[in-house]
This record gives sequence, C-alpha cells and structure tokens, in this order.
Amino acid sequence: MAERFRGVITPILTPFDDDLGVARDLYLAHARASLAGGAHYLAPFGTTSEAASLSLRERTQLLELLVTSGAAKARQLMPGTGLCSLEETACLTRHAVDLGCAMVLVLPPWFYVNAGDDGLYRYFSLLIERVGSDDLKICLYHIPQLAGIGISPALAARLNVVFPETVVALKDSSGDWENTRAVIEAAPGLSVFPGSERFLCDAVRLGGGGCISASCNSNVTAIRALYDLAVAGRWSKAEAARRPIEAHRKALEAGGLIPALKSLKAQQTGDARWLNLRPPLENADPALGPVVAATL
Amino acid sequence: MAERFRGVITPILTPFDDDLGVARDLYLAHARASLAGGAHYLAPFGTTSEAASLSLRERTQLLELLVTSGAAKARQLMPGTGLCSLEETACLTRHAVDLGCAMVLVLPPWFYVNAGDDGLYRYFSLLIERVGSDDLKICLYHIPQLAGIGISPALAARLNVVFPETVVALKDSSGDWENTRAVIEAAPGLSVFPGSERFLCDAVRLGGGGCISASCNSNVTAIRALYDLAVAGRWSKAEAARRPIEAHRKALEAGGLIPALKSLKAQQTGDARWLNLRPPLENADPALGPVVAATL
Repeated sequence: MAERFRGVITPILTPFDDDLGVARDLYLAHARASLAGGAHYLAPFGTTSEAASLSLRERTQLLELLVTSGAAKARQLMPGTGLCSLEETACLTRHAVDLGCAMVLVLPPWFYVNAGDDGLYRYFSLLIERVGSDDLKICLYHIPQLAGIGISPALAARLNVVFPETVVALKDSSGDWENTRAVIEAAPGLSVFPGSERFLCDAVRLGGGGCISASCNSNVTAIRALYDLAVAGRWSKAEAARRPIEAHRKALEAGGLIPALKSLKAQQTGDARWLNLRPPLENADPALGPVVAATL
Repeated sequence: MAERFRGVITPILTPFDDDLGVARDLYLAHARASLAGGAHYLAPFGTTSEAASLSLRERTQLLELLVTSGAAKARQLMPGTGLCSLEETACLTRHAVDLGCAMVLVLPPWFYVNAGDDGLYRYFSLLIERVGSDDLKICLYHIPQLAGIGISPALAARLNVVFPETVVALKDSSGDWENTRAVIEAAPGLSVFPGSERFLCDAVRLGGGGCISASCNSNVTAIRALYDLAVAGRWSKAEAARRPIEAHRKALEAGGLIPALKSLKAQQTGDARWLNLRPPLENADPALGPVVAATL
C-alpha cells in the first residue's frame, strides 16, 4: 500500500523585488519560518505562489535553491508542476522527482476547459508514463473556479485505482465541502487535502489528509495545533481552536488572499518588497496588513 | 498612423506523429497549402493549433522551421505568443519580432480569471516595455469562453490609444457579434478580426480587418473569395458566397472544430497521423472527415 501523505502544507508565497524578479532572500526566510512554525510540507508553485506567473526556469531554480540553501529538505517539498503542455509538465515533474521531492501538485491542463474525463485520464497516464519513476507521487489539484476545468471524483478514483502507488493525493480548492466529501468517498485510497483549514476537522474525521491552505502562510502554528487536535480526536478542543483561525481566514479572503497575505508580510517584516505582485495581479495595499494582523 | 492589418488569416493546425511529436512534414505542407490557397497570413499557435499543448521550445523551433524551410515568409506570420508568465510571453514575443514576424497574437494570462482591466493593462504595458521594439505589433486575443478572462472593449481602446503603433489589432473569438461591434466602435484604431468568417462581411462593412478563423484550415480559398467580395463592396455576391461557407463552418463546429478539421485532413491527405491530438484532447474520429467533406 502506498505511503499515506498527511499534514499541514503551506503553498508558499513568492516575494518579488521591485523589478519583479524573485526576492530570494525573502523567499528563503519565509520558507524556513513556515517549516519552523509547524508545516509538514511546503508546496511551492501553488496558486498562492502566483505559480502561473513564474517561468519554467524560475521554478526549477527556486526549487533547487530551497534545497541547496538548506531552507527545506527535498522530502518536505511538493512543488506545483502542472502546466498546459504535457512535455513541460513532465519536465518540471521529472526535475522535482530527481531532486527527491515528496510529491508534486499537478493542475489539469487548464486552457482545455471542455476536455472530458477520458481526455484528462489520457493526459495524466501519459504524464506518469513519461516521467517513468517509482518515486513519482502525484497530488491532483482541483481548483475549477480558476482553472476552468476540474478533477471529478470519478476521475480521481479511476487514477488512484489504476496508479495506486503514484496518484496518491488530491488538493480540493473548490471551497465546496460536498465535493471534498464526494472525493474522499469515491477514492478512499487518496489523501484528500481541502484547500482551506475551514474543512480540516471535517476532512480528518473522514480520513482526509489535513490541509493545503493559503493561510498557512500567516497562521501555520495555529493551523498545525488544530491539525494535531483533530488527529488526536480531541474534537471539542479543536472546535474551540477553530474559531480564531476561521476569523483570520475570513479577513484574508476579504482582502483577496494573496494581497492580504503579502501586505501582512510587509508589515511583519518591515520590507515593502512584500507588497509586489506580478501582473495581471495588482500590488498589495499596505493598509491591508494591519487589518489582517488584528485577527491573529 | 500605424499600418493597418487586414485579410484572411489561418490559425494553422499542428499535426502530430503517433508519438505525439510534431509531424513537421505535414505541418509544412499544410502551411504552404494555406498560403497558396489564399491566406494573407498564417497564425501558428492559436487555439486551433493546440498551442497550449506545445512547449516553448517547440514554438520557437516550429516558427523558425516555417521560415527557414521557405514554407512561409516571416512577414506572413503572426504567431501566438501569450502565456501566463510575463517573462515567457516576452521571450516568445521577442523571438517572433527578431525573426521578422508581422504581428503576434497575445492571450491575456489565462489562469488569472479574476484580474481586472487595470491589472491586464499593466501586464500588456510591461510586455511592450520588456520587448522594447518598434517592430512589435500586437493582436490582442479575446476568447473568454476558454481563457476564462477576456479583453474588454474599454481595455482594447485604452491599449490602442496609449500604444497606437504597437497594439494594432484584436481577434474576437467570443462568437458574439455584439462584442465585435462594440470593440470596433470603442477602438477604431484597431483592426478587429472576428474568429469566424460568419462575421467577416459585417466586420469589413464596419472597418474590421477580415477574419482569423479555424475554418481557413479547410476552406481558405472560398473564405478569401468572400473577403475579396466584401472589400470590393459587392455585398449581394458576398451574401450568395457566404451560404456554402456557413454550411461548412456549421459542420466543423458540430464535429468540435479541431477533431473535425484533423479528420478532414486525414481523409484528404490519406495520412492517418492527422487524426492525432495531444491530450487532454482526444484523437479525431476518422468518420468525421467524410461528413465534413460533403459540405465543401
């Protein structure tokens, strides 16, 4: 039986210098802090990382930098590697596997919003064949409100059944608990991670994996404590711990998640570079940080 | 005043070998045939080209191949260069400009479905700044039903007013004539190309540029003749010419455009490689070709 991935996973922010190059010093400090704060894994190149705005070269270089700098061990990393081109997705995935990463987070090819489950099945099975490594562990990434195309519970189950040692997890960022529940039920072999700690307890109760959540960028210690309570089955304590975490999440969402997180980091570090986002996203408003900080 | 782009433009199909590598022999033959058939320009790497499934390396290599093989002159090419990463979009765009291409077709960064006009304006203006060439001519690519984000008439007008020598055209693949009309009215400095010859006459009548249409892959000579009638103001002849063209378009659409076109090419050339599509799209049904051929 495949190793079961569990835990609290931070899809780490990508800070940018004023010329919009990656601010490597801030990046490494942030990665270290998130692991020190309690994250089990880091997921570089998720949505919160502005991954779609990064080039292939930046992704491979940053992943290597995380490891060579000692900011993270490769087995603590599950980078996003899903692009629209199968060849490029295979290239990034192979690089992550060769580096020793724990897992990869793979979006469906998101320009093809009308593709069906059979076409997506062919895409993922060809990806697995091309990477051709027993070390490959895939976390499917379901975020239909941005990708325009999702991973249905039936497709997730089919991939897990055919590739039980490879397709081992799913991140559900739909924000729809009924979908998360449906995937857990349809594909009991998968570790299912809600995209928000809002559903962490519900997911753990049904055997889900934990969470991969934007708010782990600002609140990882509290979310880790909540996870530990849930795993221990201390549900009433968990319920009490959940309330302030939820209030912080709501404040982040009201500020648009990435801008709110970056504004908060700018305030906490005193480094205004944290306010930079790559276009088409707009720079963060410095006034957001204090509003969000008040909920911590 | 900027040069006015006009004409019939083929977003050329990309044929694949059975291992899903690009079938270069079929590609070049198809490009030559489309120009010989009457296309003013070729647009490699549009939606019909399965552009999102091609890697950056494939795009630069194929563009160079079209020119070095003599299949097309650089000034007959307007490749798609829009990716989600500004750096990679700038890289492909610079390559096309350096090669001498007439224009580039640029999608908005399509993972960012919630980006606003200000963010998109910043994206395109930074792209123009980074490419930094007077030879750069941009055709904005509006296809919101796949990209999840579009180019509003107001944004198109703003970009054309600020960069009148650079942002010179727009391809409207929304299929919504009211939107096409709104862009022509809002941005009279732009050459507006409907994504279907269905609206060619209406567009030319209002000063639009012609069309950039998938069906130019199978029916370019008839569409070119229609364009010539429209430009000459021979509207009643054009109306008569439009009917069979429209019937063919409908047959292609019923077959899902790319599979229908590829199945037709397989039939016409006797080469079954034309049936191959890259996943997540599924291979074309050979039975489609004869159905579509009957409308030619």
